[in-house]
Amino acid sequence: MGNDVVRRGRLSGERTGEMIHFLSSMAADRHIAEADILVDIAHVMMLSKQRILDGVTTRPLLAALLKLYDEGIPESVFEDEYEDIHAGIEAFLIAMVGEETGGRMHMGRSRNDEVAACLRIRLREDLIRQLSLLIRLRQTLLSLAEEHRETVMPGFTHLQYAQPTTLAHHLLAYEQAFSRDCERLSEGYSRVNQSPLGAAAFASTGYPVNRGYVAQLLGFDGVLENTMDAVSSRDFALETLSSLSIMMVGISRLCEELIIWSSPFAGFISLNDAFCSTSSIMPQKKNPDFAEIMRAKAASLIGAYTSAAALMKGLPMSYNRDLQELTPSLIRGIEDARQSTSLLNGMLLTASFDRERMREEAGKSYSTATDLADMLVRRCGLPFRTAHSIVGRAVQNGGLDRHHLDEASVSITGSPLPGSTIQDTDIMDALDVEKSINLKIAPGSPSSFSVKRAIDERKKRLDDDRHRTDQLAMALKEAIDNLIFETRRVALEQ
Amino acid sequence: MGNDVVRRGRLSGERTGEMIHFLSSMAADRHIAEADILVDIAHVMMLSKQRILDGVTTRPLLAALLKLYDEGIPESVFEDEYEDIHAGIEAFLIAMVGEETGGRMHMGRSRNDEVAACLRIRLREDLIRQLSLLIRLRQTLLSLAEEHRETVMPGFTHLQYAQPTTLAHHLLAYEQAFSRDCERLSEGYSRVNQSPLGAAAFASTGYPVNRGYVAQLLGFDGVLENTMDAVSSRDFALETLSSLSIMMVGISRLCEELIIWSSPFAGFISLNDAFCSTSSIMPQKKNPDFAEIMRAKAASLIGAYTSAAALMKGLPMSYNRDLQELTPSLIRGIEDARQSTSLLNGMLLTASFDRERMREEAGKSYSTATDLADMLVRRCGLPFRTAHSIVGRAVQNGGLDRHHLDEASVSITGSPLPGSTIQDTDIMDALDVEKSINLKIAPGSPSSFSVKRAIDERKKRLDDDRHRTDQLAMALKEAIDNLIFETRRVALEQ
Amino acid sequence: MGNDVVRRGRLSGERTGEMIHFLSSMAADRHIAEADILVDIAHVMMLSKQRILDGVTTRPLLAALLKLYDEGIPESVFEDEYEDIHAGIEAFLIAMVGEETGGRMHMGRSRNDEVAACLRIRLREDLIRQLSLLIRLRQTLLSLAEEHRETVMPGFTHLQYAQPTTLAHHLLAYEQAFSRDCERLSEGYSRVNQSPLGAAAFASTGYPVNRGYVAQLLGFDGVLENTMDAVSSRDFALETLSSLSIMMVGISRLCEELIIWSSPFAGFISLNDAFCSTSSIMPQKKNPDFAEIMRAKAASLIGAYTSAAALMKGLPMSYNRDLQELTPSLIRGIEDARQSTSLLNGMLLTASFDRERMREEAGKSYSTATDLADMLVRRCGLPFRTAHSIVGRAVQNGGLDRHHLDEASVSITGSPLPGSTIQDTDIMDALDVEKSINLKIAPGSPSSFSVKRAIDERKKRLDDDRHRTDQLAMALKEAIDNLIFETRRVALEQ
Amino acid sequence: MGNDVVRRGRLSGERTGEMIHFLSSMAADRHIAEADILVDIAHVMMLSKQRILDGVTTRPLLAALLKLYDEGIPESVFEDEYEDIHAGIEAFLIAMVGEETGGRMHMGRSRNDEVAACLRIRLREDLIRQLSLLIRLRQTLLSLAEEHRETVMPGFTHLQYAQPTTLAHHLLAYEQAFSRDCERLSEGYSRVNQSPLGAAAFASTGYPVNRGYVAQLLGFDGVLENTMDAVSSRDFALETLSSLSIMMVGISRLCEELIIWSSPFAGFISLNDAFCSTSSIMPQKKNPDFAEIMRAKAASLIGAYTSAAALMKGLPMSYNRDLQELTPSLIRGIEDARQSTSLLNGMLLTASFDRERMREEAGKSYSTATDLADMLVRRCGLPFRTAHSIVGRAVQNGGLDRHHLDEASVSITGSPLPGSTIQDTDIMDALDVEKSINLKIAPGSPSSFSVKRAIDERKKRLDDDRHRTDQLAMALKEAIDNLIFETRRVALEQ
Repeated sequence: MGNDVVRRGRLSGERTGEMIHFLSSMAADRHIAEADILVDIAHVMMLSKQRILDGVTTRPLLAALLKLYDEGIPESVFEDEYEDIHAGIEAFLIAMVGEETGGRMHMGRSRNDEVAACLRIRLREDLIRQLSLLIRLRQTLLSLAEEHRETVMPGFTHLQYAQPTTLAHHLLAYEQAFSRDCERLSEGYSRVNQSPLGAAAFASTGYPVNRGYVAQLLGFDGVLENTMDAVSSRDFALETLSSLSIMMVGISRLCEELIIWSSPFAGFISLNDAFCSTSSIMPQKKNPDFAEIMRAKAASLIGAYTSAAALMKGLPMSYNRDLQELTPSLIRGIEDARQSTSLLNGMLLTASFDRERMREEAGKSYSTATDLADMLVRRCGLPFRTAHSIVGRAVQNGGLDRHHLDEASVSITGSPLPGSTIQDTDIMDALDVEKSINLKIAPGSPSSFSVKRAIDERKKRLDDDRHRTDQLAMALKEAIDNLIFETRRVALEQ
Repeated sequence: MGNDVVRRGRLSGERTGEMIHFLSSMAADRHIAEADILVDIAHVMMLSKQRILDGVTTRPLLAALLKLYDEGIPESVFEDEYEDIHAGIEAFLIAMVGEETGGRMHMGRSRNDEVAACLRIRLREDLIRQLSLLIRLRQTLLSLAEEHRETVMPGFTHLQYAQPTTLAHHLLAYEQAFSRDCERLSEGYSRVNQSPLGAAAFASTGYPVNRGYVAQLLGFDGVLENTMDAVSSRDFALETLSSLSIMMVGISRLCEELIIWSSPFAGFISLNDAFCSTSSIMPQKKNPDFAEIMRAKAASLIGAYTSAAALMKGLPMSYNRDLQELTPSLIRGIEDARQSTSLLNGMLLTASFDRERMREEAGKSYSTATDLADMLVRRCGLPFRTAHSIVGRAVQNGGLDRHHLDEASVSITGSPLPGSTIQDTDIMDALDVEKSINLKIAPGSPSSFSVKRAIDERKKRLDDDRHRTDQLAMALKEAIDNLIFETRRVALEQ
Repeated sequence: MGNDVVRRGRLSGERTGEMIHFLSSMAADRHIAEADILVDIAHVMMLSKQRILDGVTTRPLLAALLKLYDEGIPESVFEDEYEDIHAGIEAFLIAMVGEETGGRMHMGRSRNDEVAACLRIRLREDLIRQLSLLIRLRQTLLSLAEEHRETVMPGFTHLQYAQPTTLAHHLLAYEQAFSRDCERLSEGYSRVNQSPLGAAAFASTGYPVNRGYVAQLLGFDGVLENTMDAVSSRDFALETLSSLSIMMVGISRLCEELIIWSSPFAGFISLNDAFCSTSSIMPQKKNPDFAEIMRAKAASLIGAYTSAAALMKGLPMSYNRDLQELTPSLIRGIEDARQSTSLLNGMLLTASFDRERMREEAGKSYSTATDLADMLVRRCGLPFRTAHSIVGRAVQNGGLDRHHLDEASVSITGSPLPGSTIQDTDIMDALDVEKSINLKIAPGSPSSFSVKRAIDERKKRLDDDRHRTDQLAMALKEAIDNLIFETRRVALEQ
Repeated sequence: MGNDVVRRGRLSGERTGEMIHFLSSMAADRHIAEADILVDIAHVMMLSKQRILDGVTTRPLLAALLKLYDEGIPESVFEDEYEDIHAGIEAFLIAMVGEETGGRMHMGRSRNDEVAACLRIRLREDLIRQLSLLIRLRQTLLSLAEEHRETVMPGFTHLQYAQPTTLAHHLLAYEQAFSRDCERLSEGYSRVNQSPLGAAAFASTGYPVNRGYVAQLLGFDGVLENTMDAVSSRDFALETLSSLSIMMVGISRLCEELIIWSSPFAGFISLNDAFCSTSSIMPQKKNPDFAEIMRAKAASLIGAYTSAAALMKGLPMSYNRDLQELTPSLIRGIEDARQSTSLLNGMLLTASFDRERMREEAGKSYSTATDLADMLVRRCGLPFRTAHSIVGRAVQNGGLDRHHLDEASVSITGSPLPGSTIQDTDIMDALDVEKSINLKIAPGSPSSFSVKRAIDERKKRLDDDRHRTDQLAMALKEAIDNLIFETRRVALEQ
């Protein structure tokens, strides 16, 4: 630990490789290394503006940081011998420009506010990327729905055929669910993109720092005021993981259906070969492996949230090193969610649906029996519950013709169906699959009419969401571009 | 199952008591029974408005439902022999007004949309109550902060004394965190208060139902359009549980601190006897049991979320009976959170803080050493990192006087402190606890100055939150009052 | 809290109903109330034997406790005003026999060792019951396997038809898994059935208690020696919950299959009506609700473990009130597991399998292609990987006849199949479903031969497990019978 | 995917880098790569013994595998282009010895049984290492206990001083808990070390494989018979994770105490500098970071179990690709547990305890009040509950002298203490800390007498555990040595 400029004064004690590795957060810090350079730059810019540092120190410091920014962080900075990326970069700068200059960067701050800032910067970018991917996925679902407005399929409850529906209706259910995931992630974004900088260890600092300025330089939406909360809260990470886990639960449900639909039982869908694997022993196999892994990733996200929440439970204020262990769960969760969203989109885009097969199954298992009960209500004046019981009994006894219905009516009500004009053709008419679907015209229903309306409306909402996400992305880009531009100017000042 | 009007037609088979109990959701349904009456009323009002039911049926049905609303649901409805509250109420109505009338209530709907609506109605009320309790708790924290603006205490990192702070600063950290919990719960509210009604089993219905009208009658903010999503999504429950679990993690952290602060080690706080227990064997004991149970409740909430999310993972569309098992976790989670929030407030209000003890500890363990390093930066022109190392070494060697600092400087830099004018009195001045705190004047800092500013601002935000929550509550109350008023009118119409 | 004899000396402070309810463990304590009487009895018997209490105190105390044992605990003891069942019973005894006598029962112990003992007594009984139910379930699986030794069905990987198998083979997979659950629960039993009594608050007691004697009286297998560990460890509860959650994961897998098999897609199985529900709107529906709830209960158990483990994490020694919050999770987990095991057994016993349907599907999707590849290895001398590729390509190109195989061979190896004697009839022979199954004769394979051997062996193992479980149950019964017999004798002594 | 010999026949479709990365298990497969070579070797040895392969194929295959075994697996085998290590090694062998030879290795097996075998081989080694580390940790605790048999410290309940105890007693509590973790891990070992080989895809194979022989070659304790269970069960992984998470909960509790004990509040312990970090801003800080990270790792293990269990829930038979996603959680869990155990041992070995400080605190907060109550029982003939109330009241009123006790007695019983001979010196004698401890002589108690007995006994048990673990390790080593020896012989045969 010869290079450890943070540790050298206070502590002695040699560490084994095992100890160094255990303590180091470097593996996860790769993910926040770029953000750390930005935070360092903005911090020095602020120290300069506040005249806490003079130009003699500022210029070489900024020049060195810009070099890191432009050329990338050398691999040596990531060595386990540094406890974290912050110590690694500080040591690197000191080696580059000398301690007289490099040793001044850390004035008025601590790794506690620094790491929180880095995580938030990384996370806001991840959230924007995730939102964009979700929007693409929703777009795909809307396009497929448009294509399959009239594709009839069996609708399920309890994995039993329940009532016929349209593939469009089915896919729109997921689009609607994913739009709520976008809402949650967007709302969470506003809590992520807050600046903890200036909090230092937790008590802020005696230097006349300008918290608002550094927040603005880095494109934060605001300052996370209370400085103890700023360094010790991780609810932004918990919220991100829980929102992503909820989204992944949705993805797992769709994947479960893709798995079932592509099973030989159902045969509703054929996934593209590229999204399937075969078996090392069974040459005929074509397996929906991507969908299975995504289904499993939902479990990984649930566990990531559990880990993170259990970790935070009962921690006293303010910073505790436990927080370091949260980062890998967070990063993994984000990656798993991102990849799954992206690949699910590709899997849907390249799948082919077997309309005939779906249509064939749609009418099975008396799936339109409810419509028949409704007809008995209309034509025979029966209460719905009575009609429901009669149809149910007729199914139990084996058929939905006039004869079985009368028999069932006798056993339920004591007499045959009132209103004797009903013919078997009327019954068949009531049981007709397409007619059944077309009757469902309330908002959000399976009929082509309702589906069309829904698609039009959902497209507008999607456009709004896309626009909002693009604006978030642009605002960040602009802030960082400005920061770098301004920094280059200051670094070259005389 | 003689009374089971839903089941009687289709299925035979006797069930044992064990089976009936396993299948029944009645225990949890108690929590949604009142909501169910409202849903029934609104459904019948809508059927009436849409002329799907005529007055002859509508009036006695509504009268019977109003009777249940006014007089409460009789215990017999909750018997296990009904699978759920919906079947129980329907059977009760049929027994009351006959199947010819009562058997018509369930037209154009299913228990699938019904139970989703009931859960959402129950949940929106729970959320408003939870928000009110959180607002009260934040109010208490602000009041305590006001009282303790100048109460000096040691601030911690890693449970080590780090820098002195004020109790106000410490408590405001929690207030700020709890305000984010309010945000999350409020935002989630808008996703909870959406009407799934009209979705029926999942495919909506062939009857000309008016989804917007029934949503408006029940005070929903809108219609959850896609009918498959409407019955099968439970992300609103997952989100509620995750938001509550994040909040409880915050509560557990405060409780951990109350436990530590009231331990004989620290002696910072004395909890009111009513919030403590003694031992059955050790007569002297006074234990912080409430704080401990709240800390444990955070774990219960984490587990409730885990249960609910794992339950939903991989469920195909649309309704599956698995969803029933989610409700008890949800209800328990809400109750645990509610009670904890309420009692934490009482515990804080009645606790007494020992200012002397806290002040006494605040200066220990070289807690102002950072200020001394900052002074060396100022007075000796040292880089911060160098000053930091020198002070660290002096602590390691046993003291922070001029002599030790010079020795440390030699060992770090090769020479004694530059700028020889520093006296031991300057050092003591730099180490002064109150001065250290008063230097911290950036927004969100521990100084009395910053704390005052923060309290003023937080009060305004709290008022906004209170106002918004009150408006939500009033809007609901108004909607339900109108619904009942209008229903009484229709029930009595000629 | 007028009656609270534990609290009256040390603490003042009135509590609201909300506070009393929050603190009270009474709801969960109902489950350990009977155990508590036994613990009280054994404790007094030990105090008597050690002459810590004399006969004048012992006899009326034991008589009163026997009365509670014989007549049941009156409802008043369970009121929330007592923090727990231990305080409730002590107060009841004091009311019954006076403080001069009743006030002596709690000598040399604490509620900390008492509640741990009660939980362990309750849990050991639950474990024995659970083991018995698992054994019954395994018996059912073995019987069904015997019945379906030659019932051919498609075997799955990735929910795709993979290779044909037998229903017996499939069911035996679960029997084997459940036998490991029995192992885990049995091994855990030996850690549960240890006596913490004599540990008192955590430091044992100055009275000359006899820990071995009281352990023996209560049928414990041994004494949990270290007294701090005895009161503060709950790994026995965590282990029980994790073993049950692993078991429930197995049950959820079988339930998933029952749900799929009973879907109209597959139609392999018809569940008994009693284990199904219908729909309130769709009269034709027959839904596998029990299987769905069991699948969901696996999630509840996972969450119960998560709650319990997160609760214990980071608790310092020794007893903390957090432990109280663990009990409800434990009890619920046990009940969920017990009911699920019992009802799954009934569901399997009453289900009917459609042999024709399963046989019909077994040969689809080229499920015996591996056997064809194996034949090419044998007959053409091809390496397996080459044969595997050729058959895979032929499937991709649409058929498994000589012509397609040759074409595939050309595209993989550059030349047609070596060894030209293979005819289409040879190919059909290799693809024959029954022959394919009958070739699999290694231990544990699907063939009737292997299945028969497996059933014989598994029956023996099951008999062993049943015998061991019965012995555990008898040992407990004997211990408690002896305790009560002996206590009656002492209570009546002169 | 040009080199993918498994996939080439059946499937077409190009994959993007993102897809390939998502599907590949290579990152986790590094951990089972060595095991895979052994499995390949044993499989070929068995094929040879059974004459399924002749010497012409066997010898070069074994030679190539031995080369991999001796020289290590080249990096190219781990490229993402292979879905997994099994495909990578097979492709490597084919490249090395040609498809005519290398293409014969995979006869009569599948990656499904192969990967299960590799995981089990890896896991049994991990378990042995973990057991050894736990045994070392227990040894350290016993040594420290021996050293601190008479080191008096305050014992806690509810983080309040409860009764004085000895450091030995406190440490032995953990040793006892960790010995149960050893039990659980050992028992789980017997379920891990079972061979799934011969199960092939799930239905075994038509080749005359010898499952017992291959199991014996690889040092497995037995064959996991049912072949469907063999490939699709992962309860051995769930059990390992749950046992490790229970162990880590124990470790987190000890770490929590080390954190508290080393806080300036308590000052009971000083951790070695090497196990501490300082602050980047506060030069005086010495933080117990290792203990904090270990505490957090307990949460990671809980989450790992949650992920794994939620992943398995509801998966139908037999192999599903979801299983792949379980491996990384398992590997991470094992590594976290291993490192934590090892470093906790080092942290304890190098810590120094402050006996004076602990002794000083041991008598505070009326920690021996129970002994005084016991004395009142003895000397005044009071029932324990009455004496308990009197002492409690006296504490509440501010003192434990004769005067306060009499006053308290009046308020509780209406009259002063009966038996007026008690002097203040008797009271002080009863309250004496050392006397209080020395009275506790029941097994497992804090007294030096009991502690000595306990240490002697625990040492014996530890020796047994060490012996058993060594035997497991030796048996494995012997089996693998024999396998390699025998393989070399066969590879060189003429």
